[in-house]
Amino acid sequence: MLKLFYGLGACSRASHITLEEAGAQFEAVRLSLKDGDQRKPEYLALNPKGRVPTLITDRGPLTETPAILAWIGQTFPDAKLVPRDDPFAFAKIQAFNNYLCATVHVAHAHKARGARWTDDKAAQAAMTAYVPTSVAACFDLIEKEMFAGPWVMGDTFTICDPYLFTLSQWIEGDSIDPARFPKVLDHRNRMAQRPAVAKVIAREEA
Amino acid sequence: MLKLFYGLGACSRASHITLEEAGAQFEAVRLSLKDGDQRKPEYLALNPKGRVPTLITDRGPLTETPAILAWIGQTFPDAKLVPRDDPFAFAKIQAFNNYLCATVHVAHAHKARGARWTDDKAAQAAMTAYVPTSVAACFDLIEKEMFAGPWVMGDTFTICDPYLFTLSQWIEGDSIDPARFPKVLDHRNRMAQRPAVAKVIAREEA
Repeated sequence: MLKLFYGLGACSRASHITLEEAGAQFEAVRLSLKDGDQRKPEYLALNPKGRVPTLITDRGPLTETPAILAWIGQTFPDAKLVPRDDPFAFAKIQAFNNYLCATVHVAHAHKARGARWTDDKAAQAAMTAYVPTSVAACFDLIEKEMFAGPWVMGDTFTICDPYLFTLSQWIEGDSIDPARFPKVLDHRNRMAQRPAVAKVIAREEA
Repeated sequence: MLKLFYGLGACSRASHITLEEAGAQFEAVRLSLKDGDQRKPEYLALNPKGRVPTLITDRGPLTETPAILAWIGQTFPDAKLVPRDDPFAFAKIQAFNNYLCATVHVAHAHKARGARWTDDKAAQAAMTAYVPTSVAACFDLIEKEMFAGPWVMGDTFTICDPYLFTLSQWIEGDSIDPARFPKVLDHRNRMAQRPAVAKVIAREEA
């Protein structure tokens, strides 16, 4: 059976929700990131990067959210979470998810994970202070340029939607007023009402 | 015809090489990143993120290197740069490229693009100083855990190879001795000898 390693409220929630949306059978295993479970030898043997998520499949572990989401979509085609035989439509989805991963999540990570990029405590504090500016700029771009509506890609729900939902849950924690992004906020509210999403949040917070 | 917007020596080189490897017909358009071509209105209309690469296709622009590379691979199947009908093998490729994009390139960007994450000049200098440490840690992981050999994924040349080559060209500029990573260095040398790679470098540097 599939096994997903996740951290409470972390970016792994996108994979967690997508597995539920796909109707997959899986086991969800919580790591305590604050206790450093992700750096223990038994986990590093599965994912030497020491991060979540990791999805264990029958052919081995998969890492990196955009790769895992596409794999779920392609492996459970009946859920219609990714287009089939349409490289352009697939690339648009991958580009959006890649922006979330490499730009939005990275901007957010400068709040609490500054040690990845400097060991200078004053510089880490300066990074933290700038997060409301850099993350808000990302969500401005999503709101104005990237979000088609009603779902990220338009009329069709895709693997972009759980990922945007997951990262948009962090907006208030980054000291940004979500009312600045009405489309993103409306999307977040509609996502929260989906049974798969409610089920995942209840499981993570149990 | 396809049109690729690139910056000299930037991460767009991965897309540039992959188009040549695929045997695609395309026009390559150089932007001067130091002159801010990527922030001019006519370019922002194609890519509101104001970054390279952008690939213009007959259905519109595509952005984000991992998405573009996968699109090229899927659109030119005869070049066999991505697996067909094998979501797991495809996800492994996507995970590697995603690591290059969201971790390796991001670490490198703290050298000269620190203004993305703080407006404090002293903090930017602290970020720059830490780049040899953070980027070397990334290449250590690639060398020891991720690189299968002789190509990134093993016996088959894939879209991972032009991307690793492109980022590995930055190692010396990040004040790191490439001899620390013998497999990556050997890969870089073998890549440089491929006709498609030599052609792209000659075109970019012309």
